[in-house]
Amino acid sequence: MSLLVVGSIGIDDVKTPREARKDLLGGSASYAAVAASYFAEPRLVGVVGEDFPGELRRIFQRRGVDLAGMQVEPGRTFRWSGEYFHNMNERRTLSVALNVFERFRPDLPPSCREASYALLGNIAPSLQTHVLGQMRRPRFTMADTMDLWIRTARDDLLRLLKKVDAICMNDSEARELTGEPNLNRAGRALLRLGPSWAIVKKGEHGSLLFGKDAFFSTPAFPVEDVQDPTGAGDAFAGGFMGSVARQRRTDFATLQRAAAFGSVMAAFTVESFSLDRLCDLSSGDIKARWRAFARMGDYDRRDAGAIRRAR
Amino acid sequence: MSLLVVGSIGIDDVKTPREARKDLLGGSASYAAVAASYFAEPRLVGVVGEDFPGELRRIFQRRGVDLAGMQVEPGRTFRWSGEYFHNMNERRTLSVALNVFERFRPDLPPSCREASYALLGNIAPSLQTHVLGQMRRPRFTMADTMDLWIRTARDDLLRLLKKVDAICMNDSEARELTGEPNLNRAGRALLRLGPSWAIVKKGEHGSLLFGKDAFFSTPAFPVEDVQDPTGAGDAFAGGFMGSVARQRRTDFATLQRAAAFGSVMAAFTVESFSLDRLCDLSSGDIKARWRAFARMGDYDRRDAGAIRRAR
Repeated sequence: MSLLVVGSIGIDDVKTPREARKDLLGGSASYAAVAASYFAEPRLVGVVGEDFPGELRRIFQRRGVDLAGMQVEPGRTFRWSGEYFHNMNERRTLSVALNVFERFRPDLPPSCREASYALLGNIAPSLQTHVLGQMRRPRFTMADTMDLWIRTARDDLLRLLKKVDAICMNDSEARELTGEPNLNRAGRALLRLGPSWAIVKKGEHGSLLFGKDAFFSTPAFPVEDVQDPTGAGDAFAGGFMGSVARQRRTDFATLQRAAAFGSVMAAFTVESFSLDRLCDLSSGDIKARWRAFARMGDYDRRDAGAIRRAR
Repeated sequence: MSLLVVGSIGIDDVKTPREARKDLLGGSASYAAVAASYFAEPRLVGVVGEDFPGELRRIFQRRGVDLAGMQVEPGRTFRWSGEYFHNMNERRTLSVALNVFERFRPDLPPSCREASYALLGNIAPSLQTHVLGQMRRPRFTMADTMDLWIRTARDDLLRLLKKVDAICMNDSEARELTGEPNLNRAGRALLRLGPSWAIVKKGEHGSLLFGKDAFFSTPAFPVEDVQDPTGAGDAFAGGFMGSVARQRRTDFATLQRAAAFGSVMAAFTVESFSLDRLCDLSSGDIKARWRAFARMGDYDRRDAGAIRRAR
């Protein structure tokens, strides 16, 4: 099934305590589209500069990502550079150059307008709304966002939330947007802002899925050797939406499996720099990890048994 | 089945952003013994002063906790006072008075020596070892610990770890003891220190259970209205060991269920101050929450299905 993926496409320099790597493929849409490509037909919408290397473009092509919606504009590609600290959970941005991304105004080619599913990756909420408005008959749409938009474009974001089926954000962002320090209350508060589903991403602690009368908690797949955490949340969103598009259903059971697929794709992502591992998975890799992921949260759920001396 | 529970018994003053309460039952052994009492026969080993109120003692008695090992010494009971901040995850200690706890040297009455299971709650590791040495034929023992002992009694703690079946600690403590910032590596590193099982408690994010070739991740039960987080980790450990003692088995499947029971008991704990809710549960309360907990992590774990265009 066709899945529109819009977001940033960038070139990253990433430093970790052990290694520094330059000129890597990055950006929310890159991770999301490649993660989704194992399940659905992603149609990428984004912008790059004339300097965007053919080598990076070929990563998308090898994964069968449709690039009809990838605009090439005069100037340089969006660039980000960041450094991760000892625990690999915290990072600081060393530099950002928006370049062509600054004037990005996504206008969808016909093939993208016809997509049945859409992942509105992290860009300005007004642009996410602009993309949504061009789609013909979307069956299920999910938006991701970040703290920057919560602070600088809150009204735009609140308008967007009334139009999407699902919203996806980090735990700290969910707390910030809703003003609820308790994550479970924050998740419920997100639903009151419009969407039918809210996904709260907790990094190494997994994710929470909230729906009306529905709650699902899934852990993260344990990765012992994290090489580069960049893009894990985007790969989660891409795996999630790819899985929804493949299943062609949008009920709770479908979204639960989608969250598990999202966790699996996020785990592959952090095992290497950039998309090195994510873009080169075999069918067996994914199936084996799916099984391992399913096993690690599975237990004998039968009745609690006798309770002693209770009231 | 009989379960020895040793640890602190105290009187707490607790302040949260909404409320302040004084003269509450507290201490690691109190929470653990009462949580365990729904599954097994806890035999409490600890010390209180002559001022320990009959009202607090009756909380144990109503839950059928054996108090033969609770020493009453001249002087005042251990007192702790703390304050929780806005997000309810961080706290600061306002005051501590060890009082009779300072000279605590647990000498077990015969009934406690015969217990088949033991939860060595958070006290000095040398005292935990001293308790363990008095037991006749323990079938399964678990120790809890804290950052204080990692810093001030590391060698004692390492000696203890070679003697217990399981160790249980918070995520930050596991990182500190092992020097591994990655929690999955930290869990594996704990196993190399001696115990067959390591449980890493992550508060609102649940817990991880590590064994040789075994891994289990369980979320926390979502509590939207946290009144007082004190004792959640102790109730987890008590629920865990109570469940192990009731099941009379110590295989992986048993410990998985035990971790789920631990999460259920921790969730009840934080819903009120002190042990107010924990000490007054009905059989139906526990069974209903067990079912809700089982449901929230359950999903269609069948095969991953077709993977598209993989290598």
